[in-house]
Amino acid sequence: MKLQNYLREKTAFIENTLNKLLAETGARPSILYEAMRYSVFAGGKRLRPVLVIAAAETVGGRQEDVITAACAIELIHTYSLIHDDLPAMDDDDYRRGRPTNHKVYGEAIAILAGDALLTKAFEILAGCPVPGDDGKVIQRVIKEIAVAAGPCGMVGGQTLDLLSEGKNVDAETLFCIHKNKTGALLRASVRTGAILTGAGEEELAALTTFAEEFGIIFQITDDILNVVGDSTKMGKPVGTDAQRAKATYPAVYGLEQAKRMAREGKDRALAALRSFDTKADPLRLLVNYLLEREK
Amino acid sequence: MKLQNYLREKTAFIENTLNKLLAETGARPSILYEAMRYSVFAGGKRLRPVLVIAAAETVGGRQEDVITAACAIELIHTYSLIHDDLPAMDDDDYRRGRPTNHKVYGEAIAILAGDALLTKAFEILAGCPVPGDDGKVIQRVIKEIAVAAGPCGMVGGQTLDLLSEGKNVDAETLFCIHKNKTGALLRASVRTGAILTGAGEEELAALTTFAEEFGIIFQITDDILNVVGDSTKMGKPVGTDAQRAKATYPAVYGLEQAKRMAREGKDRALAALRSFDTKADPLRLLVNYLLEREK
Repeated sequence: MKLQNYLREKTAFIENTLNKLLAETGARPSILYEAMRYSVFAGGKRLRPVLVIAAAETVGGRQEDVITAACAIELIHTYSLIHDDLPAMDDDDYRRGRPTNHKVYGEAIAILAGDALLTKAFEILAGCPVPGDDGKVIQRVIKEIAVAAGPCGMVGGQTLDLLSEGKNVDAETLFCIHKNKTGALLRASVRTGAILTGAGEEELAALTTFAEEFGIIFQITDDILNVVGDSTKMGKPVGTDAQRAKATYPAVYGLEQAKRMAREGKDRALAALRSFDTKADPLRLLVNYLLEREK
Repeated sequence: MKLQNYLREKTAFIENTLNKLLAETGARPSILYEAMRYSVFAGGKRLRPVLVIAAAETVGGRQEDVITAACAIELIHTYSLIHDDLPAMDDDDYRRGRPTNHKVYGEAIAILAGDALLTKAFEILAGCPVPGDDGKVIQRVIKEIAVAAGPCGMVGGQTLDLLSEGKNVDAETLFCIHKNKTGALLRASVRTGAILTGAGEEELAALTTFAEEFGIIFQITDDILNVVGDSTKMGKPVGTDAQRAKATYPAVYGLEQAKRMAREGKDRALAALRSFDTKADPLRLLVNYLLEREK
């Protein structure tokens, strides 16, 4: 199979569903929905919802049963980008080649659009159709996602990242930042796909190991791109991490060692998928994609 | 019964539970939890969790069955205050007589503490124990609260409020702002208490009417206090709404007409409780309290 075709098919389904979930329905004031939609439809890779679907399919589930939750996770991811870009945080003017939310709508609306996306995500999760109509499965998934996105997950990681700027961070702090800031929601994406489609405990454990390795590789390769990437392809400037003295893998380990760590992580990620058949191929190809990506 | 005793007993139970729910448990970085706790334990009246409990008791429910959800709603209320106070929003330096969150922890941490409280609230809701172990009831409550707090509720109301500053707003816009900004979460509080303890549809409808009237009275009396209140008792300056040309009931209707509207709302709120016995007395007394409050 070709990853490119798989991604094209899945992202079309995701875009379509996001569009329906974020219909304005005459909400007032419309500028709030406009700001929410501006960042949601800003050309993201949809990696998290793709992971939800690919994990579901790995254990024999159907994409229709996880698409709503997958899109809710993408809204949480988008809110985090809007807030991270704010002047009080990373103060970024561009993302994916377009002005950031607060550059277009102003700080107040950007904060509120982020708040609205986060809250909307939980509204959508609570309204998820569940196979077997089992409310407890949704309860479990909401908890999984909230823990991953909250103070012991993504928000905690972003806080630690901000506090670490300009400081000499050790390897343990670096790991802790990224495990929470980006790793937690990627892990929750994979687990959500598996839990919602009734994965067994062993399958869930294997996919969790995969997801944790995937999260680390994602961050290492993201950090490497900020050093050696092509800013035109990425739609944002490179070298910004070094300018801000951010805690990154190349900064702590050096570029070559960081690349080696990504390759070793790939071996472990693929090993975690050993017990699955070809239905896990999209997950396998996504790991390769991380190591070869240019944005 | 004395409302004062009722409030003393309930708020002690609420404080105690909030304290347990926001235990640090070694989370990293601890400053994030410190900032979250700073605003949660800043001397709020706990009106929303009290409403959850009082509504539950009105339909024969027990406070133990709704306390977790009640506290989750208080966290959502607290997050909204932190974000509303930010320089990009209302730019308030004091709340309840203490410096606002961003004055103590800086803007970045204040934004993150708000984000963390909102997310934590949904984690707590998803972990709510439910009588009968029925996950679908929790799903319904989470949806109820998320809708009330989201773009068609609280966040939408705050956006419209911000956009209306300095403009001549009409009565319909004023109503729309407050129905969403403060009314929606008060309404969800009452409904959450009732839904979680198995209220019948007629009971729920009566309590919803009560809650909607309660929300309007709350906002009218809040607006009036900003005109005629005692800043020492309130812990924040008065006259700020007029300075900012905010959309308020006294500004749109005049002080005397606003007072009359509050009294008429009280009659309707009490009428909505007609079918309930003395178990609804706390709700009845709370309406009187709104009209007599000094902060």
